[in-house]
Amino acid sequence: MDFGTVIGLLAGVSIIIIGILRSGGDLFWFYSLNSIIIVLGGVMSATFINYPVKAIMGLFNILRNVFKSEIYDYEGTIDNIVQIAKKSRKDGLLSLEADLPTIESVFLRNGIELAINERESSRLRTFLQLELNNIATRHVAGQEIFLYMASYAPAFGMLGTVLGLIIMMNNFSSGADISDINYNVAEQFSRLLSGMGLALITTFYGVFLANMIFLPIGGKLKRKSENELMLKNIVLEGIISIHAREHPLLIREKLMTFVSLSKRIG
Amino acid sequence: MDFGTVIGLLAGVSIIIIGILRSGGDLFWFYSLNSIIIVLGGVMSATFINYPVKAIMGLFNILRNVFKSEIYDYEGTIDNIVQIAKKSRKDGLLSLEADLPTIESVFLRNGIELAINERESSRLRTFLQLELNNIATRHVAGQEIFLYMASYAPAFGMLGTVLGLIIMMNNFSSGADISDINYNVAEQFSRLLSGMGLALITTFYGVFLANMIFLPIGGKLKRKSENELMLKNIVLEGIISIHAREHPLLIREKLMTFVSLSKRIG
Amino acid sequence: MDFGTVIGLLAGVSIIIIGILRSGGDLFWFYSLNSIIIVLGGVMSATFINYPVKAIMGLFNILRNVFKSEIYDYEGTIDNIVQIAKKSRKDGLLSLEADLPTIESVFLRNGIELAINERESSRLRTFLQLELNNIATRHVAGQEIFLYMASYAPAFGMLGTVLGLIIMMNNFSSGADISDINYNVAEQFSRLLSGMGLALITTFYGVFLANMIFLPIGGKLKRKSENELMLKNIVLEGIISIHAREHPLLIREKLMTFVSLSKRIG
Amino acid sequence: MDFGTVIGLLAGVSIIIIGILRSGGDLFWFYSLNSIIIVLGGVMSATFINYPVKAIMGLFNILRNVFKSEIYDYEGTIDNIVQIAKKSRKDGLLSLEADLPTIESVFLRNGIELAINERESSRLRTFLQLELNNIATRHVAGQEIFLYMASYAPAFGMLGTVLGLIIMMNNFSSGADISDINYNVAEQFSRLLSGMGLALITTFYGVFLANMIFLPIGGKLKRKSENELMLKNIVLEGIISIHAREHPLLIREKLMTFVSLSKRIG
Amino acid sequence: MDFGTVIGLLAGVSIIIIGILRSGGDLFWFYSLNSIIIVLGGVMSATFINYPVKAIMGLFNILRNVFKSEIYDYEGTIDNIVQIAKKSRKDGLLSLEADLPTIESVFLRNGIELAINERESSRLRTFLQLELNNIATRHVAGQEIFLYMASYAPAFGMLGTVLGLIIMMNNFSSGADISDINYNVAEQFSRLLSGMGLALITTFYGVFLANMIFLPIGGKLKRKSENELMLKNIVLEGIISIHAREHPLLIREKLMTFVSLSKRIG
Repeated sequence: MDFGTVIGLLAGVSIIIIGILRSGGDLFWFYSLNSIIIVLGGVMSATFINYPVKAIMGLFNILRNVFKSEIYDYEGTIDNIVQIAKKSRKDGLLSLEADLPTIESVFLRNGIELAINERESSRLRTFLQLELNNIATRHVAGQEIFLYMASYAPAFGMLGTVLGLIIMMNNFSSGADISDINYNVAEQFSRLLSGMGLALITTFYGVFLANMIFLPIGGKLKRKSENELMLKNIVLEGIISIHAREHPLLIREKLMTFVSLSKRIG
Repeated sequence: MDFGTVIGLLAGVSIIIIGILRSGGDLFWFYSLNSIIIVLGGVMSATFINYPVKAIMGLFNILRNVFKSEIYDYEGTIDNIVQIAKKSRKDGLLSLEADLPTIESVFLRNGIELAINERESSRLRTFLQLELNNIATRHVAGQEIFLYMASYAPAFGMLGTVLGLIIMMNNFSSGADISDINYNVAEQFSRLLSGMGLALITTFYGVFLANMIFLPIGGKLKRKSENELMLKNIVLEGIISIHAREHPLLIREKLMTFVSLSKRIG
Repeated sequence: MDFGTVIGLLAGVSIIIIGILRSGGDLFWFYSLNSIIIVLGGVMSATFINYPVKAIMGLFNILRNVFKSEIYDYEGTIDNIVQIAKKSRKDGLLSLEADLPTIESVFLRNGIELAINERESSRLRTFLQLELNNIATRHVAGQEIFLYMASYAPAFGMLGTVLGLIIMMNNFSSGADISDINYNVAEQFSRLLSGMGLALITTFYGVFLANMIFLPIGGKLKRKSENELMLKNIVLEGIISIHAREHPLLIREKLMTFVSLSKRIG
Repeated sequence: MDFGTVIGLLAGVSIIIIGILRSGGDLFWFYSLNSIIIVLGGVMSATFINYPVKAIMGLFNILRNVFKSEIYDYEGTIDNIVQIAKKSRKDGLLSLEADLPTIESVFLRNGIELAINERESSRLRTFLQLELNNIATRHVAGQEIFLYMASYAPAFGMLGTVLGLIIMMNNFSSGADISDINYNVAEQFSRLLSGMGLALITTFYGVFLANMIFLPIGGKLKRKSENELMLKNIVLEGIISIHAREHPLLIREKLMTFVSLSKRIG
Repeated sequence: MDFGTVIGLLAGVSIIIIGILRSGGDLFWFYSLNSIIIVLGGVMSATFINYPVKAIMGLFNILRNVFKSEIYDYEGTIDNIVQIAKKSRKDGLLSLEADLPTIESVFLRNGIELAINERESSRLRTFLQLELNNIATRHVAGQEIFLYMASYAPAFGMLGTVLGLIIMMNNFSSGADISDINYNVAEQFSRLLSGMGLALITTFYGVFLANMIFLPIGGKLKRKSENELMLKNIVLEGIISIHAREHPLLIREKLMTFVSLSKRIG
């Protein structure tokens, strides 16, 4: 579990609830199925037009990723690579073939397999780099959906508010009972405000969804992607070094340059 | 048919209709020919100034593309290329000339023809790359029109609302019948709100058009373009490999790197 | 005449006029010399600070360009280049010197002259490319003025509205005649609305100028620039090919790759 | 004196004053020391946090630059360089040492000095290019301050308006004298409007400062920077050519390519 | 202590307080624990979702950095490097090993150590450049947090205002006592305004936090990062030059090119 995400979400919702109660509001004033339909429905419809169905289905996988704890064991990975490098230097690259099934990380395993089969170093790098770019592209596409939703949410919130205001104004003018003077003014004004309050709920939902859900999740995905790509970059450099038969100690030193970074930026 | 687009559009319209009805509104309150003229007319006029007539005529082709189902048969294309590569390796590049008419994809056919006539590999790549860049430029230009329209729509929505408010305010002050006191206030207020409701309809249209139509369609075009360009990139790499007389198995392996990506990002 | 621009502008103005009349408004409600002074004067003042006087004077040339019909005769240009290439191949590059005065296009003429005098191919390309970059920079600077004006216009529209509101509110409170009760409320309210209507006219002007004039013209300039640069790119590649004494047929084939693009994106 | 800047500023201020007077406003309605403190003070405070003290002190130099007339004597500079090139070609590069004190432009003088001492052409270019990049970076930093201030100004304008509204609303409710009915409504409403008018003045200042002062000055600095860098680029290319002992006529021709650009974009 | 930051912050807060008092407001009207909870709580929650816990903990270090005085002793650093270069030229690179513990700057010390162990110049540059990029990436990540917070703050300010308005409107309509006519109108209106004033406080906080705290601090971090990276760039070039056994005088001259820049942009 990624506690930051969970705690942040819980805290965010709690803070809004506390804010409502402390301001003397009732929670049910902020519940409106209609508003949910307009805002969430609008965001989902626009997203469906914007993205192929498959990409939207992939959202659930992406979301699960957001809540998974992020352990990027840079040092463990480097130890692993150095072990492989030692064996390769002693017994030759081909000796690694037997160990392939024991390598957990898919990227490392496929990389070692490629290194065994590919003679030319520059081609090996090209292949691995292409694979890495593909992963980065996929990550960016995942983040992009959330940024799109973060821009749709306040727009449909505003749409709902305009919609509510139009209805309120039409209701008001069509229901105006002119025969009865002062009473009318007070009650009508009260009805007016109540309608406006209802209309504003969609804006409330839109701003909340965009700034508490979609934008931060998009930001977290970006962060996770940077960490994962850095880990994969270490693996890539490691595989290239093993392929070039560099000395294991040198490989470790080189890969540790990345780690000092990851430690500092967490 | 691209069901995502169709379902998204239908859902989007339905949701707004449901939202209106459930909020106690009448649908005809949201119909105003005048507002349609201002918002859609304004968007179309600005687009006509912005783009040459030919580009706007091309919009219909682009729109048809948005609703067409997107089948990018990466694996079939690779099979196809590998078949051609096998024949070329056995019977020589020139033997492909007879098969040209049977190749469906225009890009692949032209590419093979170029490969037959061009000796130099780097020139072949340059030509194909130029063609690909041209296609990408055309795609970007198509997406851009929708993004421009998505920025014009809320602007003309707002223009219409300001226009409506100015008329309402002038109507109000010029029609004020001051001799008759309280009655006046209630009725005038009701007229005021009704005018404001009418004025807001253009904002409603502008926000709806931008966020439910123009922006998502621009986004979908971007998505489709990425997929089509990836397919064409596979073809490009395949043609270069055939021209370089690489082994068909190697060609397949190489091209499959692209496919693993396309599968994952859908 | 560029009919798109003219029709777009006429349609845009007509639509707004129709919108006003159909909404029951009077056209003169939307005329306010004062508002024109504030919005247009503000935009021009800011532009004068922003740009050197010479650049603003150049605006008239740029505007004339926007209304000129855009005929980019790619195929005629290529025919022309191929003719020159044929002669050059038969009689030598120096033989072209006599024909220089008959070449209409300045860029082509200067380019051929350079090709005659310059031995080294890479230097020729560098010179022509520098010239092309200069033209592109000039185009971008021209578009930028319109984008700046498009951002100033709504800002000064808003400034004028705030200015009008401040005046209205001060007028109101300083003119409040408190001795006379109900009459006052109705009349004051009517005066208030009338003042607000007046204040909104600058917003109306600002939004209209930005979205119907400045932004679309900036967009059209971008489009025209792309077309002109593509034509000049064809000429550049043609001159380089002539200089390299390539076969005229090959030159035609190569240059036609650009044309297929221009045809498709119009 | 840069007349564009001065005329633009005077015109901008005059237009606003004319707008106020013609709308029936009093100029002193738009003067509020308090609002100036909030908007200008806020902008300056934020800028002080944002930038080191030295950079803000440098603002005065930058501002002086904005008002200085911009004479970029491209052709004179080229003549100058060609003269130096002729002497260098006749008497050798070392002969230039004696003339160094007579060269006015610091950049040209330092460049020639470097050219005399540095044997290797690529190192000479690297040094000059680094110097040029440094100048460009300094220019961008200067422009950036104005863009920051242009974004702070409307923000603090809005802050002041919100602040004013909060005070007005609290004043109103705490001062409500409920015993006295209709009189109250009219007077309170008048007080309300007066308070709102006062609150809006900060928005007025913020929008004015951003769009009439900060943004256009930032734009002008960008323009001036482009011109100065182009002049320095000519000098750079000239020094490299002198160092390479190219023929003075060729140097002139080459450098004139830049000039044709500068003439056209003014 | 960085006096610019401290003075700016104090001035910013003072100016707002002066503005409130001079406008006839009470400071406690601007204090609302509830509003602080919503705005600051919302910003922190969103940041917690957006960033891993470690990154947020790192904020305190970053903030301390903002308040630390910035002394970038370019010339002292260059003197230092030139001393090291002299010794290295006289006694050989290996002789520097003994002095390593006396070098204060971590980056310089590690760099010299690397220079001693690494034969190949290009690899040395790659390593140092990678380290520099890592530092730059970390800086950018630190600035980014503040930019995110600067975008969340006004959003949650607006959310709080919408929330307050909804509560006010519901309170109003649910508490409307219709039996009692005119009294009601005046009092209700006063209650309405008071509620609106309260609702606006979150907007006030959001705008203040974004424009007086988060944005300027993000800007200052950017500035400090540029200075630190320039210093580290000088060190990098110095180490490379020492490794290449260039003449100390030449090294000084080269490194001083950077200094002239730093002096000018402060």
